[in-house]
Amino acid sequence: MDAEYIAALDIGGTKMAAMVASRDGPLARISQPSIKSGTSRALPEQGLELIEAVCAKAGVPASAINTLGVASAGPFVREEGAIALCSPNLCGGLSSDSDLPNDWTSIPLEKVVRERYATVAIDNDCVSALVAERTFGAVIDEPDCAYVTWSTGIGFGLCVDGRLLRGKNGNAGHAGHILMSETDDALCGCGNRGDLEALASGRNVGIRANMPASELFERARNGDAQAREVAERAAQWFGRGLYNLVATLDTRVFVIGGSVWLHHGNWLAPLVMREIESRFPALTSGVRILPAALGRLVADVGALAMVVPKDWIPLWRQGKPWEKLAKG
Amino acid sequence: MDAEYIAALDIGGTKMAAMVASRDGPLARISQPSIKSGTSRALPEQGLELIEAVCAKAGVPASAINTLGVASAGPFVREEGAIALCSPNLCGGLSSDSDLPNDWTSIPLEKVVRERYATVAIDNDCVSALVAERTFGAVIDEPDCAYVTWSTGIGFGLCVDGRLLRGKNGNAGHAGHILMSETDDALCGCGNRGDLEALASGRNVGIRANMPASELFERARNGDAQAREVAERAAQWFGRGLYNLVATLDTRVFVIGGSVWLHHGNWLAPLVMREIESRFPALTSGVRILPAALGRLVADVGALAMVVPKDWIPLWRQGKPWEKLAKG
Repeated sequence: MDAEYIAALDIGGTKMAAMVASRDGPLARISQPSIKSGTSRALPEQGLELIEAVCAKAGVPASAINTLGVASAGPFVREEGAIALCSPNLCGGLSSDSDLPNDWTSIPLEKVVRERYATVAIDNDCVSALVAERTFGAVIDEPDCAYVTWSTGIGFGLCVDGRLLRGKNGNAGHAGHILMSETDDALCGCGNRGDLEALASGRNVGIRANMPASELFERARNGDAQAREVAERAAQWFGRGLYNLVATLDTRVFVIGGSVWLHHGNWLAPLVMREIESRFPALTSGVRILPAALGRLVADVGALAMVVPKDWIPLWRQGKPWEKLAKG
Repeated sequence: MDAEYIAALDIGGTKMAAMVASRDGPLARISQPSIKSGTSRALPEQGLELIEAVCAKAGVPASAINTLGVASAGPFVREEGAIALCSPNLCGGLSSDSDLPNDWTSIPLEKVVRERYATVAIDNDCVSALVAERTFGAVIDEPDCAYVTWSTGIGFGLCVDGRLLRGKNGNAGHAGHILMSETDDALCGCGNRGDLEALASGRNVGIRANMPASELFERARNGDAQAREVAERAAQWFGRGLYNLVATLDTRVFVIGGSVWLHHGNWLAPLVMREIESRFPALTSGVRILPAALGRLVADVGALAMVVPKDWIPLWRQGKPWEKLAKG
């Protein structure tokens, strides 16, 4: 029997969101801060409770849900074949100088949610965002594309030859951590110096400029010469990063989201394109960058898109029912 | 009816090789310098003639061949959907200061060989090498792996989730051209400064040391301090390049071939591994590097492996019939 309802979770380092949807579209969404204490099962159990709550809010019996899509912050590890989280933003046991109120070294995400749901799909949140954009957004039917978030961090969801890339533990797309400078000693949260995220992420650009990234990019747009220099340098690094992806994967289209791009993509885009187009024409000719069509809800809609029944897709494409959630 | 014979071509910037094989293995191989004059059809037509010649050598009627695998130097472009070559080492029309005796801007490889053969598979030579290693070599059944050649240039064949990556024009794996240094002004043949190939390829390391790369690595192995420093620096860049692939694709195993690695992999391997293992344990934990099992014939055997009938594979794995060719 086909599903009447599906559910989705978006698990981040700061917040978690749950949604429930029917053929007509997402019915409700609830968000709350991610739990960071208790046993290592606490976070996925919070997710299960949040789905019960969002079902109650939507008037859907929780027992009607058998299918769950999960978009989650990475990286992942495999424990007895099941995906577990080993994100340093969630697991206090991964670093000796962590100030998190737990000693988790991994979080058994897939194990816990499979105890409750028969059908489960779990992907990195950037992979999930790419699923959303390929199903409902800017790159429908595009076989060679990537989703990129330029926000606090920088992450990628990758698609080559029409297939999403996952890799040995589902961590394909951590190209925010590729090494790009050997002299710039910018430090990344992962411990690298001179990787893309150290050089261009909102968090790291903000640290260098000694102000929030949002303020820095705002000042740069308004003509402040010093802020402009920092922002342009970040855009160059970001563009060089996208070029590196083109050289590696022969990508045709990048869909870009995240808070930096949502607010400043219009004036940053030419700076980024210049770094791509100026190199190796056989690889870069015709490469395009597009803004994410699904905006702030891209990972949430992606978590639904990962498990959406095929016959709902044309209806959702036409009605864009997630837009109600964005306003709610 | 199943094929009784298959043929293969390996097209390089310097030489071209043709092979014919039966269930018992490769029967003969002929190699000759790649043609670089005449019309843009000259090179693929040379390939067709070379297959006729290798059939004659093996006593196989040329009319018995309907299936062809081609490993070729890239990059590729698509012309009316068919793969054409736009390699700067073959096409004189791609650069104003080329000294090649032709004005080709592309070579209609797939178009010409499809006029003769019903079943044709064409891949970049590093992709083909990876097919060889996944079918007969070091990474049989490994879903997340890459072949890397460290030779005159540096190139990759990529496999993620058990599927080879090709990209919009079949150019996935040109990660020798990822940018890795913004201060080192080493110039690559593609025009980039500070890409992996500029920093570590045999050709470029040789140019910097003012001697052939073979001599440089030989001296380094024998303890010459100056040569050792140059070689170790190249190995560091190479290792950082492999780490970048791990971060991007969550790769588990690298199979490494090419003349530098064939002769010096044993002492370079620890230097390369250090650059991988020192970074981001969630991604790099358990990553391994292995020498190519098929040695110098890896791309040739790969061109056959691309079209080999499934029921021949167990026989070839057992008998390693390509080893006769390596001696011939």
